[in-house]
Amino acid sequence: MPNVQSLRCKECGRDYPQEPIYVCDFCFGPLEVNYDYDAIAKNISRESIQDGPLTIWRYDELLPASRDNAVSIGAGMTPLLKAENLGKELGLNNLWIKNDAANPTHSFKDRVVSVASTKAVEFDFDTIACASTGNLAGATAAHGAKAGMNTMVFIPSDLERGKILGAAVFGSVVLVNGNYDDVNRLCSELGDDRRWAFVNINMRPYYSEGSKSIGYELAEQLGWRAPEHVIVPVASGSLFTKVYKGLQEFAQLGIIDSADTKMHIAQPFGCSPVAKAFVEGQAHPKPVVPDTIAKSLAIGSPADGMYSVGIANKTGGSGTIVPESEISEGMKLLAETEGIFTETAGGVVISTLRRLAREGVIGPDEETVALITGTGLKTLEAIADSVETVTIDPTIRSFDEVVTGAAVS
Amino acid sequence: MPNVQSLRCKECGRDYPQEPIYVCDFCFGPLEVNYDYDAIAKNISRESIQDGPLTIWRYDELLPASRDNAVSIGAGMTPLLKAENLGKELGLNNLWIKNDAANPTHSFKDRVVSVASTKAVEFDFDTIACASTGNLAGATAAHGAKAGMNTMVFIPSDLERGKILGAAVFGSVVLVNGNYDDVNRLCSELGDDRRWAFVNINMRPYYSEGSKSIGYELAEQLGWRAPEHVIVPVASGSLFTKVYKGLQEFAQLGIIDSADTKMHIAQPFGCSPVAKAFVEGQAHPKPVVPDTIAKSLAIGSPADGMYSVGIANKTGGSGTIVPESEISEGMKLLAETEGIFTETAGGVVISTLRRLAREGVIGPDEETVALITGTGLKTLEAIADSVETVTIDPTIRSFDEVVTGAAVS
Repeated sequence: MPNVQSLRCKECGRDYPQEPIYVCDFCFGPLEVNYDYDAIAKNISRESIQDGPLTIWRYDELLPASRDNAVSIGAGMTPLLKAENLGKELGLNNLWIKNDAANPTHSFKDRVVSVASTKAVEFDFDTIACASTGNLAGATAAHGAKAGMNTMVFIPSDLERGKILGAAVFGSVVLVNGNYDDVNRLCSELGDDRRWAFVNINMRPYYSEGSKSIGYELAEQLGWRAPEHVIVPVASGSLFTKVYKGLQEFAQLGIIDSADTKMHIAQPFGCSPVAKAFVEGQAHPKPVVPDTIAKSLAIGSPADGMYSVGIANKTGGSGTIVPESEISEGMKLLAETEGIFTETAGGVVISTLRRLAREGVIGPDEETVALITGTGLKTLEAIADSVETVTIDPTIRSFDEVVTGAAVS
Repeated sequence: MPNVQSLRCKECGRDYPQEPIYVCDFCFGPLEVNYDYDAIAKNISRESIQDGPLTIWRYDELLPASRDNAVSIGAGMTPLLKAENLGKELGLNNLWIKNDAANPTHSFKDRVVSVASTKAVEFDFDTIACASTGNLAGATAAHGAKAGMNTMVFIPSDLERGKILGAAVFGSVVLVNGNYDDVNRLCSELGDDRRWAFVNINMRPYYSEGSKSIGYELAEQLGWRAPEHVIVPVASGSLFTKVYKGLQEFAQLGIIDSADTKMHIAQPFGCSPVAKAFVEGQAHPKPVVPDTIAKSLAIGSPADGMYSVGIANKTGGSGTIVPESEISEGMKLLAETEGIFTETAGGVVISTLRRLAREGVIGPDEETVALITGTGLKTLEAIADSVETVTIDPTIRSFDEVVTGAAVS
């Protein structure tokens, strides 16, 4: 891509050529894509963006792969919805929900895998791979199919049948006898041994850039301005840092006037190293052993945790540790007020939002976005015990006896 | 709405006022919304549409409710994807997939329920209701929550737990002891007894108009022209007739030059009254007792079956009866080539497409759209027996023995 100058170490600043590498040989810092913003500024405008496709690829000037090669199943440009009902509930008059469950495989991972798989094509890989037990499996399997690449999605063989099917339908699942650690170890060995594109390992610098598109979309969908607050669920912290980066880039390029968004970290009690570091005033999150129902956030040693804490501090944001019992409460609250069924990570976000509103961290009229990263359909077990239903006999009399007067909705 | 003149009987042409009614008192024909197209022509243009929201409400001039009142969780403007891989497989160079699984509750039902619930608000109903075992339950529960209305989604109490949860999370499910017939009977009795908005009964004339938005989107997303072929899964036939109506309206209003689209009926062997009537040259489908794995198409007495047959004939379209065994084949073919996981109805559509391509009904260069109405995540059982996986031990040696050489993808 003409707009990319190098990969650059986030720690020591050393430059590397654009290759499938992800770590600095000298200081072991993570590599990040380094753009030629002067060149980009000459080509990008609100109009050029609006003339593009209704996918993440409308922002291709700021992505590390070419729109011409895009492996796209339609990721991006998900709805940003005014949440009047939830806002009323929480005393917020200017609340928005970004619903990334509307992506093709129903999570934000389609954004990052679309970029990673496109870059894998550009690097002339013939195999794309990942280890995952969740959203990444579906996104990688789907994009691998679309790219026509050899695809290897490694998952533990004892995973729930439903999750296996949801990825295996794309034709690319390898079940591994063992637990998730065994799967990861095998993938590391294969990564050293084979010339494959592992989407979130050797492709990670490119992959993670896909999340910037959420920041761009927020700005565009709000009428070309940055919100005052964004609440982001944190696992590795990559998503958090990239939403911030997207907003900053837009401001730097003059696409929006400014980006003074306060960035808020949302984590569940059972895996909250980043939020905890923020609360305790530490720069470096301490690794933990995850034990949370929000499985997509269960990363105990978050690679971008330190950067996330830094951004939350710099922007006047916050870090919230959500009790496990409040996760399904958050899921239900969003469903019952806005008609959106989120995965557990979204429950963490909504419960964080509720706390920030109660504590006055977010003022009643401040423009706020809560980021919903995926659908609840894949994690039904998380709400199985907390959703209530009524049961009646098939007669009006039974209906009246059991339901009428009772608040069904 | 100023653009609506009346409800009009599709059979005898009698006009009725805009009320929550759905059947002609004189001839028992279905009522349909009758617009003032001269008034619409003065207000609508490609530009006015493009200035609207990225939902079905961008076409509000042609919907029977006002955008100002819209109960919207973001339905519509789903991706239209160039299907190069599937096209290559089938010998079609100009094939597109319209992926309505990208709607908020993951099916096209969000379109119709968004219109029905908005109209229910305009009619000042306080309760919205439906009977359903599938996509309609989720769409109604979600929109009812967003509308802040009392919501009653009636489902059989012995439905799979996953499907109950997917609707009950929105807070509005009434489980009925009995089978689906019992549920429907109760709903009919309640419909006579209460002033409720049943989305697909007394709200049906408005509800069904929501499906026209698919026709509009196809034309807009193709660059303001109608495709040469559309393949639509048929249950009641409502979707089929409304996609056609949407394209015709756009041509009539000069938004597109013409709409000579051939409309193709796709039905599964276990419930194919409409396709059978087409094939046998009958105008009226004969009712059947459904027995198909494509449960969302299991309507044995299709209300709009006759109109669908008429449109297929008039446009030079076709009717295809897909063997039950080919349904999961179609689902897998789409997943493995395009990375899209469809519900069973989509498997029927893709297998129909394959047959039409083989038989030369669709020529290699003719612009063709296959309509995918919902996600496979809700009907995992349909592919449980046909998806293949490989299982290995967590070693490179086991990987090489089992996988290498074998075509995993």
